[in-house]
Amino acid sequence: MPGVSPFAPAHFPTLPPVAGVRMAGAATGLKKNASAYDLMLVEFAPGTTAAGVLTRSLCPSAPVDWCRALLRRGRARGLVVNSGNANAFTGTAGDRTVALTAQAAARLLGAKPQDIFIASTGVIGNVLPDDAIPQRLPGLTDALSDDSWEDAARAIMTTDTFPKGAHRTARIGDKEISIAGIAKGSGMIAPDMATMLAFVFTDAKIPAGVLQAALKRGADRSFNSITVDSDTSTSDTLLLFATGQAKHPKVSAAGDRILRDFRRALEDTLVDLATQVVKDGEGASKFITIDVSGAASARAARRIGLSIANSPLVKTAIAGEDANWGRIVMAVGKAGEKADRDRLSIAMGGVQITRDGQPVPGYEEAPVARHLKGRMVDIAVDIGIGNGRARVWTCDLTHDYIAINADYRS
Amino acid sequence: MPGVSPFAPAHFPTLPPVAGVRMAGAATGLKKNASAYDLMLVEFAPGTTAAGVLTRSLCPSAPVDWCRALLRRGRARGLVVNSGNANAFTGTAGDRTVALTAQAAARLLGAKPQDIFIASTGVIGNVLPDDAIPQRLPGLTDALSDDSWEDAARAIMTTDTFPKGAHRTARIGDKEISIAGIAKGSGMIAPDMATMLAFVFTDAKIPAGVLQAALKRGADRSFNSITVDSDTSTSDTLLLFATGQAKHPKVSAAGDRILRDFRRALEDTLVDLATQVVKDGEGASKFITIDVSGAASARAARRIGLSIANSPLVKTAIAGEDANWGRIVMAVGKAGEKADRDRLSIAMGGVQITRDGQPVPGYEEAPVARHLKGRMVDIAVDIGIGNGRARVWTCDLTHDYIAINADYRS
Repeated sequence: MPGVSPFAPAHFPTLPPVAGVRMAGAATGLKKNASAYDLMLVEFAPGTTAAGVLTRSLCPSAPVDWCRALLRRGRARGLVVNSGNANAFTGTAGDRTVALTAQAAARLLGAKPQDIFIASTGVIGNVLPDDAIPQRLPGLTDALSDDSWEDAARAIMTTDTFPKGAHRTARIGDKEISIAGIAKGSGMIAPDMATMLAFVFTDAKIPAGVLQAALKRGADRSFNSITVDSDTSTSDTLLLFATGQAKHPKVSAAGDRILRDFRRALEDTLVDLATQVVKDGEGASKFITIDVSGAASARAARRIGLSIANSPLVKTAIAGEDANWGRIVMAVGKAGEKADRDRLSIAMGGVQITRDGQPVPGYEEAPVARHLKGRMVDIAVDIGIGNGRARVWTCDLTHDYIAINADYRS
Repeated sequence: MPGVSPFAPAHFPTLPPVAGVRMAGAATGLKKNASAYDLMLVEFAPGTTAAGVLTRSLCPSAPVDWCRALLRRGRARGLVVNSGNANAFTGTAGDRTVALTAQAAARLLGAKPQDIFIASTGVIGNVLPDDAIPQRLPGLTDALSDDSWEDAARAIMTTDTFPKGAHRTARIGDKEISIAGIAKGSGMIAPDMATMLAFVFTDAKIPAGVLQAALKRGADRSFNSITVDSDTSTSDTLLLFATGQAKHPKVSAAGDRILRDFRRALEDTLVDLATQVVKDGEGASKFITIDVSGAASARAARRIGLSIANSPLVKTAIAGEDANWGRIVMAVGKAGEKADRDRLSIAMGGVQITRDGQPVPGYEEAPVARHLKGRMVDIAVDIGIGNGRARVWTCDLTHDYIAINADYRS
């Protein structure tokens, strides 16, 4: 059985309280392993706004449908997340379970059901009984506090090998605001558990529409720029909540200059969480950063980067510490974005390998081979036809990925 | 080192001569292993027409560019294919090598250079010297015969573990015509050698435009409906040559009723070759047939099928003989084609698992688990929203795939 990710930090990072946010996480017996954390409740102060980016899967889980509907209002008083059961592909029974869970949480928090966001992760296709979560919520309500971040991060884990948290501060006008987030990715052992969930909280006071624009932009540069194995969950959910407790100057439009530092800090938080998800990718032994430049647009650059990042042949070459740049040419070619064979330049670990469509004269593989022996691998590709840039992250494809997903039965 | 594919046939199939086609294949020292076959020459009778489907890669090899230009004329007198060097990502040097090779073959066959098709497969980024192939061609010209199919099939192999051939007959009017083809796929050991090449020959007399239409349709249902690992080579090439030696009634349009049996036989030949490529897929231990029905269109059905076939999580589950149908739901959802969670039905090995978006009442895994222990795995998915159908083939994703692509250095 593969062990803990080689990228796991020594301890969970210190996340300070965010005004207007209280949380609890506990082991409540939803998972077979009775000591495993499996339920999280978060309470938000009145006036909290919400934004979200949800899976593009056309077979989404019941909680994803629920969140999509709530985001049209953009207001939040609570968030309930369970692990162990994805409540996906459960038909109308799944929708009813979500509604009853929201009603139960709303009663406990003195809110309306349509203020309660819900996410679930775990096995697909098992019905989650109507009362499974409602009967467990009172215990969590009693335990709410402003500093139980690690409990919360543990409660949303499935096959992750370490809990994931990140924190940044930013200035809006002359006031410092706080951003904290937790995430889960795809980890180990049990199949069906590759859903990506991330929840980010701030005390800033930002209207829902403005919050949504900031989150969308940040998500494109973080959670939408990573891949472990190209598969898309039925349940991927990224939510951002702003409690409005900070007393900063008013924010009214997404383009407000006053929001610039907030956008930077939000993006940093999201990239921090997203790269932790990659570092805990199933079987990951190398963390790969891919910089694409010179593409027709930023969007084209990201697609080319993801084509490289998703290529099994590129990922296995890196697992094998093989400086096999021909596979990068292949992945650029198949991306479907404008490219010119005779302008393509490739570097690995800062060593130029090809320029203008041909190997660099006198290219020697030894320094690239040395770079590939490390944990962190850098690939830079210049398409040579425009100014579009993007950065994308992934991990290698190893025997442990196969072991996790094929050898151990659910 | 992984061994020969478990699907390798006991011997190469018997392919009868096709009037107007002579071929030779030999070991000429282009590969490091001096006894490995590496060069093929095919001669066509005057009047032969040609059609082709080439890689969609935007970084194609020099031979692919050459063939694309020749297909506008649609006439052929010769075909030269080497293995061991892909002549891809070799800049203008690669284009010159192709032109000089075509000139040399044209001289030997008494033809024009623009009648000589060329394909190369092997390592990317190594320059193929101008005279490498021209100096080896006279020996092959002397050896041309009408029954050296197996030599030819061996000469285009790279990491394949068995040579691939197929043969069918068809009636055009009252005359029987013959169709024979050879192919190579992705095999073992050396990286960079995953190019798919297939060459098909018939004695039918069919104008180039009509031939192209028939090939395009057949390719969509065969070579464009298979996947091993979702990667697209810089060099994928499928060519069809019609020598016109058969004395059947005249064919003038692609829709001619008289061509119906020919189209059927051509598609059968292409499917036979394409599924052999899958069966020799790197590390393959299971051959998977995926039938998609009830999609919005045939095109949508194929995209959904390929989304399932390309999913690492589906492929590893099957490698592990795990009846993990939740991953099929996931792959349908991420295909980007219209679907409805509550209408989706899934069966494996003929056993209905889900219907209308929920597990079938009383579903038992045991018979599905038994089916998955076999070499041949069948998945049937009904989307429930339309009449679009498609069949797609793939193999599982195993430790041997990682071993072949990561553990053994180039």
